[in-house]
Amino acid sequence: MQGAVLHGPRDVRFEQRAMPAIVQPTDAIISLSAACICGSDLWPYRGIQPISQPVPMGHEYCGIVEEVGSEVTSITRGQFVIGSFFASDNTCPNCQRGYQTSCQHRQSVVGAQAPFLRVPLADGTLVPTRDVPADGVVASLLALSDVMGTGWFAADAANVTPGSTVVVVGDGAVGLLGVLSAKQMGAGRIIAMSRHETRQALAREFGATDIVTERGDQGIERIRQLTNGLGADSVLECVGTQESMKQAIESTRAGGSIGYVGVPHGVTLDGADLFFRHVRLHGGPAPVRRYLPRLIDLVLTGTINPGRVFDLVLPLDQVAEGYRAMDERRAIKTLLRP
Amino acid sequence: MQGAVLHGPRDVRFEQRAMPAIVQPTDAIISLSAACICGSDLWPYRGIQPISQPVPMGHEYCGIVEEVGSEVTSITRGQFVIGSFFASDNTCPNCQRGYQTSCQHRQSVVGAQAPFLRVPLADGTLVPTRDVPADGVVASLLALSDVMGTGWFAADAANVTPGSTVVVVGDGAVGLLGVLSAKQMGAGRIIAMSRHETRQALAREFGATDIVTERGDQGIERIRQLTNGLGADSVLECVGTQESMKQAIESTRAGGSIGYVGVPHGVTLDGADLFFRHVRLHGGPAPVRRYLPRLIDLVLTGTINPGRVFDLVLPLDQVAEGYRAMDERRAIKTLLRP
Repeated sequence: MQGAVLHGPRDVRFEQRAMPAIVQPTDAIISLSAACICGSDLWPYRGIQPISQPVPMGHEYCGIVEEVGSEVTSITRGQFVIGSFFASDNTCPNCQRGYQTSCQHRQSVVGAQAPFLRVPLADGTLVPTRDVPADGVVASLLALSDVMGTGWFAADAANVTPGSTVVVVGDGAVGLLGVLSAKQMGAGRIIAMSRHETRQALAREFGATDIVTERGDQGIERIRQLTNGLGADSVLECVGTQESMKQAIESTRAGGSIGYVGVPHGVTLDGADLFFRHVRLHGGPAPVRRYLPRLIDLVLTGTINPGRVFDLVLPLDQVAEGYRAMDERRAIKTLLRP
Repeated sequence: MQGAVLHGPRDVRFEQRAMPAIVQPTDAIISLSAACICGSDLWPYRGIQPISQPVPMGHEYCGIVEEVGSEVTSITRGQFVIGSFFASDNTCPNCQRGYQTSCQHRQSVVGAQAPFLRVPLADGTLVPTRDVPADGVVASLLALSDVMGTGWFAADAANVTPGSTVVVVGDGAVGLLGVLSAKQMGAGRIIAMSRHETRQALAREFGATDIVTERGDQGIERIRQLTNGLGADSVLECVGTQESMKQAIESTRAGGSIGYVGVPHGVTLDGADLFFRHVRLHGGPAPVRRYLPRLIDLVLTGTINPGRVFDLVLPLDQVAEGYRAMDERRAIKTLLRP
């Protein structure tokens, strides 16, 4: 088969790769119904997170089970399944607490920008739908594999409650779905920080009540103005830079919460500053597996439509153009059809 | 009157100071029933937090109201009162959310190592007892002014729940009262980190089930051993150094919580490390005012006896010896009798 492989900065190739096969008896092989490119794929694509050898790309997936290992009991051939970017056994103490991305037997899922994928720990990782879903909802179900679950975790970690005031830092797909998540959780006011018109429009569609275009100190000042000088109850940090974390911290009220899901790159926090600001901080790789059953239900009942973040659809063999479009911010998120 | 004044590193003098007087119509003047020395007083005492001019010391207090300003309505002459180290109006949005130490009109209370003290914002700051309490409980009531409320906040911020496993980093008075707080909140296992026998004994009296004497990487390793390799549900950080914060972070399970109340001195946190550890972080200056009514009740009903942390009692004029004893760790906490 052919799939996406990163060879170096801005050098993604669609090339021959070995057909995935069962390696462990707990594995499953799935044929992807759709694949996509993650904002976090741009870190190595841009060379910010260097690679030492060619790397098969992609970690978001949904599709049909083709084959399962001899020890897989709950997943069967022919099912439509969705899983997370980290495989987990879903039984260890960390999984039982809902932190499947800190599973004691966690394994990365890699190479999902391809027609077929090996998923380790299939019983713990994959969640099947009751029926094979219609094509029209596949994009939204694919979004649950990472980006929607990550936005949801950001809102959950930021303790969004009914009627609360929420700020979302970052207008990538995760930030936009953070807006949608906060709306689902009943937030009364959702302030999206964005300077891109198409993203602002989608943020409003997802539930944003205010848009702030300023950044840096002016962005902080604007949030203060909008919140009577107090800061917001909940802030979702969906970028992962020093600047975005500063924006988040200084936009939060005393006793308020920051949910941070942007993978931090070179971010350091000053202990005394956090202390005197009285903010709560929680984040990390989103435990998507915890949320999958509920989010699948919200998609299949038509309550949410997170697939709206895919504003570019390409055949899989044009994956390189998909990366370029996201790198240049021409696309929010690219869906790839195998 | 005479009170304690810090002139420079390890130079505390008991010397003439102006008698406090009403300055604002919202002030009260109290005569102290007892005073004490805080662990945080040791930062400037040791020169780690330099001072530029002589500073009246002390911020923990309880006593009898002598005089109130013309706008004070709920506090009257003759009442026994307890207040926090930050005066607060208890009406602003931050106060209403329970973060009185981030009150929009917050003022520091200073100079409490003296016979008399001016307390700003008396209505919002002071909590009276129904009757003037017996001498025997004054030490425990004094402890509520800071050290007990701070230990309680550490446990509250660390989300201690019934049956949970708790680690307390720091065996000063705050850490020891963090143990007591965790016990009150129903913790099933409380691991106190201490290498001092008298403090270990008090920790056990307050509810510690395990003592860990190791520090640094060995301390972290020991906590991991005691928690099946997972880390604790809740960790109370009661020191404020880089090493103690590292100890706290690496002792916490994925999804667990750190309550940090040691004023951070030179502490920086690595964003990516916090992210991949999945820990929750909350701390700051303890909103003692929020807890005072409940803690006063717990003391007056004999449920808790936080005054046990005072293991040295001196007349106020020997305040310098009180500092020396705490600096040299001969005393956990010094009570001063005016």
